[in-house]
Amino acid sequence: MPKLMPYSKKLDYSYALGLFPSLTLAEVKPDVISRLLLDPEGLDNKGVEKLREICRGLGVREELAERVIKRESGKDNCYAALVFRKYESELLSECDHAVLAQISDLGNVGTALRSLLGFGFRDVALIRPCADVFEPHTIRASMGAMFKLRVTVYDSFEEYRTRYPKHELYPFMLKGAKRLNDVAPNAKHPYSLIFGNEQTGLPDSFAHVGQSVFIPQTSDIDSLNLGVAVAIGAYAFRNC
Amino acid sequence: MPKLMPYSKKLDYSYALGLFPSLTLAEVKPDVISRLLLDPEGLDNKGVEKLREICRGLGVREELAERVIKRESGKDNCYAALVFRKYESELLSECDHAVLAQISDLGNVGTALRSLLGFGFRDVALIRPCADVFEPHTIRASMGAMFKLRVTVYDSFEEYRTRYPKHELYPFMLKGAKRLNDVAPNAKHPYSLIFGNEQTGLPDSFAHVGQSVFIPQTSDIDSLNLGVAVAIGAYAFRNC
Repeated sequence: MPKLMPYSKKLDYSYALGLFPSLTLAEVKPDVISRLLLDPEGLDNKGVEKLREICRGLGVREELAERVIKRESGKDNCYAALVFRKYESELLSECDHAVLAQISDLGNVGTALRSLLGFGFRDVALIRPCADVFEPHTIRASMGAMFKLRVTVYDSFEEYRTRYPKHELYPFMLKGAKRLNDVAPNAKHPYSLIFGNEQTGLPDSFAHVGQSVFIPQTSDIDSLNLGVAVAIGAYAFRNC
Repeated sequence: MPKLMPYSKKLDYSYALGLFPSLTLAEVKPDVISRLLLDPEGLDNKGVEKLREICRGLGVREELAERVIKRESGKDNCYAALVFRKYESELLSECDHAVLAQISDLGNVGTALRSLLGFGFRDVALIRPCADVFEPHTIRASMGAMFKLRVTVYDSFEEYRTRYPKHELYPFMLKGAKRLNDVAPNAKHPYSLIFGNEQTGLPDSFAHVGQSVFIPQTSDIDSLNLGVAVAIGAYAFRNC
């Protein structure tokens, strides 16, 4: 077997670290899995047993690889990991989308993906520069939600828009024109909820793109955490 | 001046690390500040200049303390910090409360505090065992929101309840009896929104405490991130 390299964006494979992400991957994308890595200390863990059984069923080779797991997971405790081939997804044009524009924090993107899946979104566009969705820490922060989503990366918002010209656009901005609660109940499907990064938000030009929205909040805080803003947007559009 | 010790829960002082938390502290609790610590590399930063000016006005001693700042902030970049005396707060009985029960992750508590302040909550009860709210990383994760809140720690939920017997109670549970959106618009003030920890949630016994609530979510995820759940609860109760 080839030597497993430290994760980098250039590799054509990545690591699903930990039981929850690994079990999710094995459930929804068994065909991309190539190897099961085990830490000897976790061999009597029930979740690990379940994962090994699934991998045997899939014909996936297992191996003790404590050092690789430790190297990739850092300080997080981790008993098992799957090596898998990176894959491409295409967003469905009839579904609602979330667009994360220039969000580079791995944890923020991971948390956002988890919440989006929790509120029934399946299609997520990322606009460059952005976090690498195949980075093991993004996957981990998403608790494996990444594997259940269709995620596609675009060079620019325009490129995304050209591909999906019919979606109703709802950019989230601190200076948005309308309150979230006044907009969400009347949203037209399919729509795209658009979020900018935590430091600068979306560029002002988005004020004229579709219907801009703000989440009412007190002046006591500078802004909401990005993962929180995405979750509230997704919640309000789906539960109204 | 006494030597500044590595932060520990036992100290009667703590550190506000970074400009945003420091400026917030200087604005809302100037009387607890004892020293301003500066990293020589940040002396030409405008925010640092503003903080120094405020501290001069307050008669707070400033000193170069690169090593203390680095020690306390770890890998985060940080140009300035304030040393401040820990203080006690008492929740107001006429205000709505948030109750965070046995949440020990510093980042989760910090993010939750920031969102709560953003949605107009001023009073937060923590139930032990819980994160230390004066831990510099909790303060940082709250972006200084901690200083604008009244936060009190209780040994048990019963102790909290005995002190505030009249609040309407809304425990958030995956198996809550009613949907968030059906409950929030009719909530009676003052109320307490109650959240359990991310791993286990609230004990089942809370199903019979007040009106239990759930946040509708797909079965694709195990649960929402705790900070996200608190933010959505606070948003829904305040923006209905």
